[in-house]
Amino acid sequence: MDAHFEPPVALGAARELVEPSLRAAVDRLDPKVRRVAAYHFGWEERDGSPGRGGGKAVRPALAVLSARAVGADGTVGVPGGVAVELVHNFSLLHDDVMDGDEERRHRPTAWTVFGRSAAILAGDALLALAFDVLLDADRGRDAQSCLASATQELIVGQVYDLEFENRLDVGLTECIAMAGAKTAALMACAASIGARLAGAGPAQIEALETFGRELGLAFQLVDDILGIWGSPEVTGKPVGADLRARKKSLPVVAAMSSETTAGAELRALYAGEKLHTDADPQVVARAAALVEEAGGRRWATDEAARRLAVARTAIANAGLDSSATRDLLALADYVTQRDH
Amino acid sequence: MDAHFEPPVALGAARELVEPSLRAAVDRLDPKVRRVAAYHFGWEERDGSPGRGGGKAVRPALAVLSARAVGADGTVGVPGGVAVELVHNFSLLHDDVMDGDEERRHRPTAWTVFGRSAAILAGDALLALAFDVLLDADRGRDAQSCLASATQELIVGQVYDLEFENRLDVGLTECIAMAGAKTAALMACAASIGARLAGAGPAQIEALETFGRELGLAFQLVDDILGIWGSPEVTGKPVGADLRARKKSLPVVAAMSSETTAGAELRALYAGEKLHTDADPQVVARAAALVEEAGGRRWATDEAARRLAVARTAIANAGLDSSATRDLLALADYVTQRDH
Repeated sequence: MDAHFEPPVALGAARELVEPSLRAAVDRLDPKVRRVAAYHFGWEERDGSPGRGGGKAVRPALAVLSARAVGADGTVGVPGGVAVELVHNFSLLHDDVMDGDEERRHRPTAWTVFGRSAAILAGDALLALAFDVLLDADRGRDAQSCLASATQELIVGQVYDLEFENRLDVGLTECIAMAGAKTAALMACAASIGARLAGAGPAQIEALETFGRELGLAFQLVDDILGIWGSPEVTGKPVGADLRARKKSLPVVAAMSSETTAGAELRALYAGEKLHTDADPQVVARAAALVEEAGGRRWATDEAARRLAVARTAIANAGLDSSATRDLLALADYVTQRDH
Repeated sequence: MDAHFEPPVALGAARELVEPSLRAAVDRLDPKVRRVAAYHFGWEERDGSPGRGGGKAVRPALAVLSARAVGADGTVGVPGGVAVELVHNFSLLHDDVMDGDEERRHRPTAWTVFGRSAAILAGDALLALAFDVLLDADRGRDAQSCLASATQELIVGQVYDLEFENRLDVGLTECIAMAGAKTAALMACAASIGARLAGAGPAQIEALETFGRELGLAFQLVDDILGIWGSPEVTGKPVGADLRARKKSLPVVAAMSSETTAGAELRALYAGEKLHTDADPQVVARAAALVEEAGGRRWATDEAARRLAVARTAIANAGLDSSATRDLLALADYVTQRDH
C-alpha cells in the first residue's frame, strides 16, 4: 500500500456533483431527524456547528461515473448516487447500534451522542428517503429495483456478520458470501445505477455491476487487512481493533481455515479469553503474527488483487466511454490501495 | 363501546385478498430474516410451527376498499395494501425495540424472542420490501410517493412520542400532532393508496385521504381510552398499562392541560415515583379516576366521535362507489367501537 496515494480527480468531482442533492434530500427530513443524520454525515457537530465533512463518497462517484460510462452526462447518475449513499449511511447508523461501535471516522458514533432510538430512527428515515429520491428520476423504477435488492442483501450480510460473532467454525466460502452481501452488493448497485438511469442496455449494466461487485470484495479485503495491520491514523480505529473484537474478518477466517499450526493456535486464541478490548498488546501482536504465519494476509492480498483484475477486465471490453472507464479504473486503484 | 361488535364482512374479504400477496412478498426474504417477520405477523411460532394469525389488517382493508371506492376492482388495491401493512409492521418491530415493550397481540414481542438486532433488521427488511412490492404495480409511483411521506411522518411521530416520555409539559396540540404523524398518516395513505393505484382524480384521492386521517385519529383516541379503561382481554396489555408506564396518551394530556384540581393532582402523580410497572392497583385506579374527573375521558370520547363524523362526511359526497362507501363506513364504525 503506497503512502500518500492521492484521491483521483473524479472522486472529488463526483462528490461536488452529488453532495448538494444529498444535502437537499436530507434537509427535507424533520429537523430532529435531520440533526442526527447531519451529525452522522459529518456535516454538523453535535451542537449544530459546521462539521469537517464526511466519508470519501465512493458510491456516489461510482453512480456518476456509471452514467458517464454509457455516454450520458454525469448528472443523470446523481439521483442514483444520492440513493445509494443514503442506503449506505442507513446501514452504518443501524450497524453501529447493533455492533455497539462507539467510533466512526474519528468521531463518536451517532447513537453514542443522540441515543440508540434516535440513531435507529435516523437510519429508518434515510432508507425511506433513498427510495423517495428516485421517484422523480426518469427510469427510476429500474434504479429502485436494484436498490431494493441491494438493501435486502445488505441486511442479510449484517445478519450473518452478527451470527459469525457467536461461531468459531466460520468457513471461508460463507465469509466471502457475507462480505459479498454486506459490502459488494451495494457497490454493484452503485456502479450500475447511473447506467440504469441513463437507459443503458443489459450487457453494459451487467459489466458495470460485475465491476462494482468485484471491486466491493477487493475493497472489503483491503479494509480487513487494514483492520489488523493498519495504523490508527489510517483506520480511525485503535490498533488491532478487529482482533481485539475477535472479528471473523476475511484474513482471519482464511488463516483459521488453513490446515496450519498457526491457524490452530489462532483458533484457540479466538476461543479463549485472552483477546478482548483491553488485551495485552503482545497478545494482539501475537494474533496478527498468527494470521500472517497461517497465510491469511497473503491470501487476502492476492484475493484482493485477483478481484481487482476481474473488475478491470469486466469494464475493459464492454464498449464503455473511455474517459469514464479510465476514471473508474483510477477510482478502483485508489480504494484498494488506500492508506487512510 | 358495544360488547361483541362483529367485524364487518369487508374486513375479512380484504384480508383474504391481500394476505396471499403479503405472505408471498415476505417469503422472498432471506430465511433468517423471514423467520423473524413470520413470527411477528403471527404466522409462525418461535419454533417455526404454524401461528394463530395476526392483526386485524385494517390498513390492507382500507387499501382494497379505496380501489373499489373509485370504481376499480379490489385487486387493484392489493399491492398498496401489502405495502402499507409492511410499513406498519416495520414500525411495530422497531417501536417495540425502542419502547422496550415485551408483549404484543398477547405474545412476546419479536425482539424478546430473537434479540434486538434481529428485530431491527427484520424491520429494515420490511421497509425496503414495501417500496419493492409497488415497483411492479401500474401507477406505483404515486403510491410510493404517498408511502414515502407517510413513512417519514411515522418516524417523526415516534421521535415525538419518545421525547414526550421525558417531558411533563406536553400540550394537547402537540400531542394530537404526534398521534396524527404516528397513526393517522399511514391510515390516510392506506385509505387512498388503492385509489391512487386505480388512477383516480385528485378530489377523490383527497376525500379518501381525509377519511383515513380522521379515522386514524379517532382510532388512536379509542386506543388510548382502552389503554386506560380497557380490560386486559381486550387490549392484550395488563390493566392500566398505559398509566403504569406514565404514558402521555391523549386523554391523559387532555386531563393534565385542563385547569382543574384533578388535572393538577394527575400531573403531580406523573411527576412523582408512585406510578410504575408494579404500582399499587389503588394508585393506578386513582390516576384513571383523575383523568376522568379532569374531563380527559369525556374529551377523548367526544373528539373521537367528532373525528369519525368528519371522516364520514369526507367520503359521503365525493362521488364514490356506494357499496364501497358503505363498507368503508362499516369499517370505520368497527375500528372505533371495538371491544378487543
